[in-house]
Amino acid sequence: MDVVNLKSMLARVGDHWAPKKIAELNDYDVKVVKVLGDFTWHKHADTDELFLVIDGQLTIQLRGGDVSLGPGELFVVPRGAEHCPRADTEAAVLLLEPRGVINTGDAAGDLTANVETLR
Amino acid sequence: MDVVNLKSMLARVGDHWAPKKIAELNDYDVKVVKVLGDFTWHKHADTDELFLVIDGQLTIQLRGGDVSLGPGELFVVPRGAEHCPRADTEAAVLLLEPRGVINTGDAAGDLTANVETLR
Repeated sequence: MDVVNLKSMLARVGDHWAPKKIAELNDYDVKVVKVLGDFTWHKHADTDELFLVIDGQLTIQLRGGDVSLGPGELFVVPRGAEHCPRADTEAAVLLLEPRGVINTGDAAGDLTANVETLR
Repeated sequence: MDVVNLKSMLARVGDHWAPKKIAELNDYDVKVVKVLGDFTWHKHADTDELFLVIDGQLTIQLRGGDVSLGPGELFVVPRGAEHCPRADTEAAVLLLEPRGVINTGDAAGDLTANVETLR
């Protein structure tokens, strides 16, 4: 039952595209991730995925067009929607989705991350 | 598929203790609420509840002691834990919990809110 400070947690994150679990809400995980460059196009067939930008600027490329998010802005990628996050400069993002969702969805590949927990 | 700006949404919230839905994530609702003063002691038997402070200071009173949160800090009240949020000056909070959860939990009373959706 600890207070989680987002900036403190993000200060402990080094790698890009490597989400870290910072809290649990029922069967959902709250994660933070630092991002830079292009991720990989993928989708999650069974779940929506929430992105809340903490620092920087995040573009979520969708097949229908791009969505741009700054600090304090959130977007929910609907289940099944192909998307590819991108950040031209480093950004910090809070992610929320059911526990066990794979970051690369159906695409797999080198960017697939094991989610560590920060305590 | 709209970007949700937390500050813009909060600017449209007048009443205290009246959560407004701003997004959906599967069967969860993302809400914002302005708070001032003491809420009511209550619990949610079937779900955890996430509080993320956007502006101001929030105290979550728990039977085992108080938790204090500032901007960018989050806390998950475990299911079944009696709690009573309090803010000595106005604070703005993001809430996340399954759709249909009643804000006053088992306590009901005058503070029970119908959750409107901001679009």
